[in-house]
Amino acid sequence: MTETLTKVLDKVNSPDDVKKLSVEEMYTLADEMRSAIIKKVNTTGGHFGPNLGMVEATIALHYVFNSPVDKIVFDVSHQCYPHKILTGRKEGFLNPDLYLKYTGYTAPEETDHDQFKVGHTSTSISLATGLAKGRDLVGGKENVIAVIGDGSLTGGEALEGLNIGATLGSNLIIIVNDNDQSIAPNQGGICEHLTKLRNSNGEYKDNLFKSFGYEYHYIDEGHDIQKLIDLFNRVKDTDHPVVIHMHTIKGKGFEPAEKDREPFHWIVPGELDRLNEEKQPYVDYGTLTADYIEKKVNEGLPIIAMSPATPAVSGFFPPFRERVGKHYIDLGIAEQHAVAMASGIAKRGGKPVLAVMSSFIQRAYDQLSQDLALNKTPATILIFWGGITGADATHLTTFDIPLISNIPNLVYLCPTNKSEYLRMLDWSVNQNEYPVVIRVPMVGLDSEEVDSTDYSVLNKFKVTQKGEKVAILGLGNSFDLAKKVQSKLKENGINPTLINPIYATGLDKDLLESLKSDHKLVITIEDGELDGGFGEKVTRFYGTSEMKVLNYGSFKEFTDRTPMDELEKRYRLTPELISEDVRNILK
Amino acid sequence: MTETLTKVLDKVNSPDDVKKLSVEEMYTLADEMRSAIIKKVNTTGGHFGPNLGMVEATIALHYVFNSPVDKIVFDVSHQCYPHKILTGRKEGFLNPDLYLKYTGYTAPEETDHDQFKVGHTSTSISLATGLAKGRDLVGGKENVIAVIGDGSLTGGEALEGLNIGATLGSNLIIIVNDNDQSIAPNQGGICEHLTKLRNSNGEYKDNLFKSFGYEYHYIDEGHDIQKLIDLFNRVKDTDHPVVIHMHTIKGKGFEPAEKDREPFHWIVPGELDRLNEEKQPYVDYGTLTADYIEKKVNEGLPIIAMSPATPAVSGFFPPFRERVGKHYIDLGIAEQHAVAMASGIAKRGGKPVLAVMSSFIQRAYDQLSQDLALNKTPATILIFWGGITGADATHLTTFDIPLISNIPNLVYLCPTNKSEYLRMLDWSVNQNEYPVVIRVPMVGLDSEEVDSTDYSVLNKFKVTQKGEKVAILGLGNSFDLAKKVQSKLKENGINPTLINPIYATGLDKDLLESLKSDHKLVITIEDGELDGGFGEKVTRFYGTSEMKVLNYGSFKEFTDRTPMDELEKRYRLTPELISEDVRNILK
Repeated sequence: MTETLTKVLDKVNSPDDVKKLSVEEMYTLADEMRSAIIKKVNTTGGHFGPNLGMVEATIALHYVFNSPVDKIVFDVSHQCYPHKILTGRKEGFLNPDLYLKYTGYTAPEETDHDQFKVGHTSTSISLATGLAKGRDLVGGKENVIAVIGDGSLTGGEALEGLNIGATLGSNLIIIVNDNDQSIAPNQGGICEHLTKLRNSNGEYKDNLFKSFGYEYHYIDEGHDIQKLIDLFNRVKDTDHPVVIHMHTIKGKGFEPAEKDREPFHWIVPGELDRLNEEKQPYVDYGTLTADYIEKKVNEGLPIIAMSPATPAVSGFFPPFRERVGKHYIDLGIAEQHAVAMASGIAKRGGKPVLAVMSSFIQRAYDQLSQDLALNKTPATILIFWGGITGADATHLTTFDIPLISNIPNLVYLCPTNKSEYLRMLDWSVNQNEYPVVIRVPMVGLDSEEVDSTDYSVLNKFKVTQKGEKVAILGLGNSFDLAKKVQSKLKENGINPTLINPIYATGLDKDLLESLKSDHKLVITIEDGELDGGFGEKVTRFYGTSEMKVLNYGSFKEFTDRTPMDELEKRYRLTPELISEDVRNILK
Repeated sequence: MTETLTKVLDKVNSPDDVKKLSVEEMYTLADEMRSAIIKKVNTTGGHFGPNLGMVEATIALHYVFNSPVDKIVFDVSHQCYPHKILTGRKEGFLNPDLYLKYTGYTAPEETDHDQFKVGHTSTSISLATGLAKGRDLVGGKENVIAVIGDGSLTGGEALEGLNIGATLGSNLIIIVNDNDQSIAPNQGGICEHLTKLRNSNGEYKDNLFKSFGYEYHYIDEGHDIQKLIDLFNRVKDTDHPVVIHMHTIKGKGFEPAEKDREPFHWIVPGELDRLNEEKQPYVDYGTLTADYIEKKVNEGLPIIAMSPATPAVSGFFPPFRERVGKHYIDLGIAEQHAVAMASGIAKRGGKPVLAVMSSFIQRAYDQLSQDLALNKTPATILIFWGGITGADATHLTTFDIPLISNIPNLVYLCPTNKSEYLRMLDWSVNQNEYPVVIRVPMVGLDSEEVDSTDYSVLNKFKVTQKGEKVAILGLGNSFDLAKKVQSKLKENGINPTLINPIYATGLDKDLLESLKSDHKLVITIEDGELDGGFGEKVTRFYGTSEMKVLNYGSFKEFTDRTPMDELEKRYRLTPELISEDVRNILK
């Protein structure tokens, strides 16, 4: 990477400084911002393509509008780096020592130029409609602008917002940033419609936005700063809802990203330095999942891999998609639809395997409950990346156990390693009794074969070592820690019982009852929130007995890029701290 | 009500019998079905307008298509009574002794003609898309038909389904039953667009359905059986996705319901016999809420009453709506958007009060977490009708405490009576620190004034009577039962402590700690699911102490029209059963 020149950027510390620039200087500014973003993201990892696509439009926005009086809401906010650079936070993109100072998303605690903490998609129109309605109630006059990608438009909340925003009767500017790409290629009728609008320079009949009632403007030159300024000036201070349909290029200014947009949506540190190296094949829980499904497709099973627009997470890469053909479907960013459709497929005898990230399954609570659990359709839902991490507050993955495990009829399996996972997946796909959710492990990729277990015998825990006095239940990912606690306690002369509970959705009451005879303390460890989680169910079971119970997991809180070692201390999730607690209680 | 004649209906026991009728006979059949529905619903209560509007279309559907091989999915399924009558369940509409035999919704356990148990809106297209995709995977050839109302189209999941259904590439028939009305009048751009389509006989440009990519047919005569048959025959066995936009009249055939559609969406038993009686004014938690908001509007507060298309539940009746003007908004059936918009309004200084039914708040878990709680915007969300009831499985209201109380940052208040509710509402609307959810009580309408409490001091429980040995925590609605348990125990020589926890989202740890000195047993009672609920948090607190804890609430299960007395026995939710448990434990 070459050194970043910041001739114009040096002068820009706020949107006011942008307003002083000539268009020529703004193009220089765009180049400088783009270089800074490329260098920074290649160092820290982060969203790449979405930010490169929004550089010129963000400059034009801040030239025309008056943030923070005028309010800009970025959808998902994974395209907000240019905005961050122009609103007093450029040091976070220029000074490597400060690269991690600011979050990768909008964050009101950083500046008044950010309206909301956002990291899930399709919320910007609703939030902006709220800001606009609030403005109208308190008597304000400012512009409210939502910036939303074409991918995010496929999420139901965006369409609900579009519906209500249309009849707001006052200022609301929705900028549809159409780069013809979600994380993966876009899916569905809306995407095909946007293509027709682009290909007709916005003239195609049956205009979706006009059908909702919006004034509609198309701009093909989403990187032409002068044209953007002219258009933004035209709609500024409008007294009614307007949609600007803006065509941009995802990854603009970095050729490999422009050409191949899916892998450059988000990159890992150093990824740009390895472009010419041949990609090494690797095995993770995603590729294992894709391999399993492909095998079943080849065996003639009516199985189908489903993804709500995050296929890479579950190993559903383009070559896999090509090979399995109709046995794969991308549903757009539409977790609600995805769960309901999976239920429908299962009802008709298909074998849906829907892979969703832990943080995003939250969108589909009602569908998990009503469309899936209540109807007992034998669909398989895979939850990826569930667990305690140092993630951004918008992408925490600690809530899926409380979310899912308290819904009746669901079977939520928490495998502890690869073999167990694959066995559960195979069981789930081949049974017709239960809606099954599996929390794909984050550990145990190198595990050896486990004993055969019939998962149809629901809520049967597995005792992997019988001991006395203390029993340790380590759910899913946490079984590893449970084993370490066991070792630690052995060092201290205690020989605990070790249990793999397997199920997050029910208790092995016979086993728990039997522990009363020779155990004084039961410990539960789960890789997620304590409140509403697995451990509390065990504690309730023992509520009126002499058994003491101690639950480990994360607290009910939004952590925000908190380092794992800090979290482990806070939650006492180390063998040392847990065995210390145990010894204190046994005293 | 006159006697129902069933000359044609007598001959119809299945869809096959419909196929044998002449069109003239089908009209007679329609009259007979309509009479039966009016009489039955006026006896039992139930959905009225939606069913009357679908009589002719349902006859035509079963004449043309071949259910259950062809599969019809009814959205919400509150319009499925005509379908039930034609698919072997007419006794449930003709024989008063069997009026309660069948549920008010589609129910696969009753017949193969019903595909899913459904009672929440906007799911039909997604479910039908799943059935169609399943068919394509296993190699079937049948028609898949979704019947969805215009109101349900405003829900995001419907639009997600519309997006993916459009590119399915095989048979899918979506019938949009447009009666120009949700429960209340429709809201938003889609509604206005449908009006333009109706007024232009389907010719209006910028056609929403065509923009998604559907073949589109408009039929204005949704009660003309011959025309319906002709159109259904045209699209039958189509090899691509089709939308039929069908205009019907909600409440068709019952004049008062045709004229005034909102109050006749759902009627209570005997309502039709009292049409000429003057409506008596009444007070419930809805009218109290509306009155409070109107008072604040008149005081100049930038407050706004918000409803996701269920305004009557919260007292937001037409006269209130007219009087408060811009201080009321109906958001369509769009809980996700509603919560996010409320957050936006609060962020801009407005005072949103969003009223949602317990069963439907499930749609907005992610928005409660991300848009509201994470952003700590001081919006007020009111949960109506939360508690254990004998409702249909699709409308249970036992899950909101686990759903809401495990989300960080939220304050979930559970008032025990009217005075407490109004005080909490007033506190919430006038503070700027917390996102607040209030579980509107189902009890205590005749309560006297409570002491002044500062709800800003979070998680401070209220001891209403100090006793010893046993402490009873009665949350919200359950405080009444807690008081009765207290009395019962006093009869048995035990003088328990009685506590109103007020907050479902946190523990008064000082108080709980202090109980250890002179109490042996803590009882929690909550009006909802035990798993993930309030009581388990108390039990976890005492996990390693000598305190015994017993939690009362409902089990993790979908009950289905189970009588309350049966549920009270099952869950041991009576003063007698609980005091029996207490005495056994204290022995």
